[in-house]
Amino acid sequence: MTDTHKASGDTLERPIRDEDGAIDSALVEQVSQALLLSDLTTLRAVVADMHEADLGALLEALDTEERPRLISLLGADFDFTALTEVDDSVREEILEELSAQTVAEGVRDLDTDDAVYILEDLDDADKKEVLDRLTPAERIVLQQGLDYPEDSAGRRMQSEILAVPAFWNVGQTIDHLRQTDNLPERFFEILVADPAHHFVGSVPLDRLLRNKRPVAISTLVDEDSRAVKATDDIEDVARMFQRYNLIATPVVDDAGRLVGVITIDDIVDVIEEAADDDVKQLGGVRADEELSDPVPLIARSRFSWLFINLVTSFLAAAVMSLFEAQLSQVVALAILAPVVASQGGNAATQTMTVAVRALATQELGAWNMRRFFTREMIVGLINGVGFALITGVVAALWFGSQGLGVVIAIAMVVNLLAAAIAGVVIPVVLDRYEVDPAIASGTFVTTVTDVVGFFSFLGVAAIWLAHR
Amino acid sequence: MTDTHKASGDTLERPIRDEDGAIDSALVEQVSQALLLSDLTTLRAVVADMHEADLGALLEALDTEERPRLISLLGADFDFTALTEVDDSVREEILEELSAQTVAEGVRDLDTDDAVYILEDLDDADKKEVLDRLTPAERIVLQQGLDYPEDSAGRRMQSEILAVPAFWNVGQTIDHLRQTDNLPERFFEILVADPAHHFVGSVPLDRLLRNKRPVAISTLVDEDSRAVKATDDIEDVARMFQRYNLIATPVVDDAGRLVGVITIDDIVDVIEEAADDDVKQLGGVRADEELSDPVPLIARSRFSWLFINLVTSFLAAAVMSLFEAQLSQVVALAILAPVVASQGGNAATQTMTVAVRALATQELGAWNMRRFFTREMIVGLINGVGFALITGVVAALWFGSQGLGVVIAIAMVVNLLAAAIAGVVIPVVLDRYEVDPAIASGTFVTTVTDVVGFFSFLGVAAIWLAHR
Repeated sequence: MTDTHKASGDTLERPIRDEDGAIDSALVEQVSQALLLSDLTTLRAVVADMHEADLGALLEALDTEERPRLISLLGADFDFTALTEVDDSVREEILEELSAQTVAEGVRDLDTDDAVYILEDLDDADKKEVLDRLTPAERIVLQQGLDYPEDSAGRRMQSEILAVPAFWNVGQTIDHLRQTDNLPERFFEILVADPAHHFVGSVPLDRLLRNKRPVAISTLVDEDSRAVKATDDIEDVARMFQRYNLIATPVVDDAGRLVGVITIDDIVDVIEEAADDDVKQLGGVRADEELSDPVPLIARSRFSWLFINLVTSFLAAAVMSLFEAQLSQVVALAILAPVVASQGGNAATQTMTVAVRALATQELGAWNMRRFFTREMIVGLINGVGFALITGVVAALWFGSQGLGVVIAIAMVVNLLAAAIAGVVIPVVLDRYEVDPAIASGTFVTTVTDVVGFFSFLGVAAIWLAHR
Repeated sequence: MTDTHKASGDTLERPIRDEDGAIDSALVEQVSQALLLSDLTTLRAVVADMHEADLGALLEALDTEERPRLISLLGADFDFTALTEVDDSVREEILEELSAQTVAEGVRDLDTDDAVYILEDLDDADKKEVLDRLTPAERIVLQQGLDYPEDSAGRRMQSEILAVPAFWNVGQTIDHLRQTDNLPERFFEILVADPAHHFVGSVPLDRLLRNKRPVAISTLVDEDSRAVKATDDIEDVARMFQRYNLIATPVVDDAGRLVGVITIDDIVDVIEEAADDDVKQLGGVRADEELSDPVPLIARSRFSWLFINLVTSFLAAAVMSLFEAQLSQVVALAILAPVVASQGGNAATQTMTVAVRALATQELGAWNMRRFFTREMIVGLINGVGFALITGVVAALWFGSQGLGVVIAIAMVVNLLAAAIAGVVIPVVLDRYEVDPAIASGTFVTTVTDVVGFFSFLGVAAIWLAHR
């Protein structure tokens, strides 16, 4: 991978990242040394041309005490945007060490979305301290973003917008762009608004550039252009970006007035985070667990999840204990029961995983639910019969008992059907009741297959033993 | 969520999607009816203003036979881009039913990335039939894209590029854009190339628009502009887009000559797919399993995974069978052994999930591996001691045996430490040997915790029983 095909004038002598994409360890060492010696010349030279993403990665690679020190030493040479690129816990640690004045100076020049992202996790007193050090104009914009709910479009938008009236033409618009100083840092569309600042539509920049100066803006407005409400859920907005291949979308308030813009770079993070949350939650880990979280926090949150699982394990053990007589009579039952339960658990996890992701990506809905359920039942039946044959033969040969083979075969079919049902029904029901199926499905589903597995296997065994 | 804030001239009377984001079922019904009656007027009216994403969703919601029929009936009115928005298996089914001529007409006007995406899964004979119906110029471009390896940047790029010489100025560039007819459908940057078509740099459109006509293009080139090689892995390219907040990146061949452009809309799909693959593989499902896959395919691939798990279950059962004497002596051992194994399996899954995702997103590397491993060991120890106390007390009270409580407590600490080790080491080693850790880690990890769980619990129990 050739990250470093830089186009021109690359002034850095050493590579910033190694081939795995991690920040180069020699660079980290160099910065640590420079921090120790307060060698501002070296620090400035290293950081000068660095992209905010690399600077963020460098911060993460430094020791906890070194991070705020780097920022204080660099002063105005430190690009606060880098703080949007580090783990939440790293950012919180850093912000605690910096003075309100430093933070205020740092966020002052950022786009509002970045500034809000940095400030939102501060506690109210610290937030106020920083905001008080800004001018009223700066403060109002940030306060507006912070006032929207977490995970809303308003919280992630930048308030810097570029809007022109529909009656302008291409020439006027281009002249305006050339003469205006405080344009957004990056933009991809010209927004069109009426005099009351209501959103009318948007014109992609490439469309503006294809047309001659006298062409009216109103004729260029993209018919497909969409706006989102500031209160819309950011994951829904992300889904829309992805579906319609958007680059940017205007954000309007309840009255349809333009209040900001959301761009694809923020949305990419939302999309990856949403998928990442699903991965972690399905694995029994808090969605927002990060590599840099402190040990006690991690241990505590993982403990809670394991505790719930322990309760369900004991529930399954209680089911087993109903069959103490049979277990002590035929020890093979004790050896094979976990096989039945585990096979059901794995099959249910397969179905559940597909269901959870399809619900999250809106591929599974009322229109195809019946088809999906039927399909999973058939797959469960086919695989149930397959594993019934295999485990039946293995059990019969291993313990020299045909009866035991038949017992495990029956239990296997029953448990793999139960696995298919639980794997579909549990996530769907949780989703219906607005519980994130990724969080809770796993426990319920494996409880079902443990209980059904033990009960069917040992229950059928009890009947067999009674009639032997 | 206000998907339907359309800006202007929405001619459709019914909503396209319901509130869950699924295609409206009444709309599907209307199209089915119109297909039955070959009512071309209705079909054209419904499809006319439809976004490709909605058209793709409509196709998926139709029955298998209806899909190619809709395309044939609509002819040139059907936008083939919609085929890039459906599941692979749906696309394959549709393409099999269409004539080579229809497919050739359909892909002719698409951007090359979309055309390649549609053609790449055809078998070689069908592909050739379609390509033979194109003009040599059209064919060469598509063939070039198809010749790059799967999952390479070259396969996902569009060949339509817009490049200007560095000695032009803003005015010349804008005039060129106004006069050229066959510009790419959408573009976000002007590429700058030397006379031999080597990539020099790129100029974002907003930067072009901020500057007056006489300004030289060479002064506007983005110093951070990066190109990727056509042979680069697309997931690495996606990581770069995400890291540096890119919207588009030029693609060069080995000699540094411009051959195409990759845009963020394709990358968003790559990012979501990569995360989605991890979710599915961790859940024991084939990465490319789709909701519309046929049942036999699904049953077969899930069977393979369950079969591997069955083998490991039998391995664990074999460990258990070493302790038949103890199991038949104290039936409580049979009841509690699965609790120890399951608690270890869940703890290992937590650690493994975090490791797999951190490896995938390049957050975990040589530089922080030791820190991560130490952290997981401490978490494993803390939670191991916690659950040792809980299970020890429960077991002692339940079965009225302090000895049994001590046995399960020791086994719990041992197994949760084993879980932490396996949860880190197994994904990291797989990754080192270039095996995707998301696929294989789960089986290995739970095998370790099952075996260690049974062995430690029953082994300690054997010692206890021998000295009782």
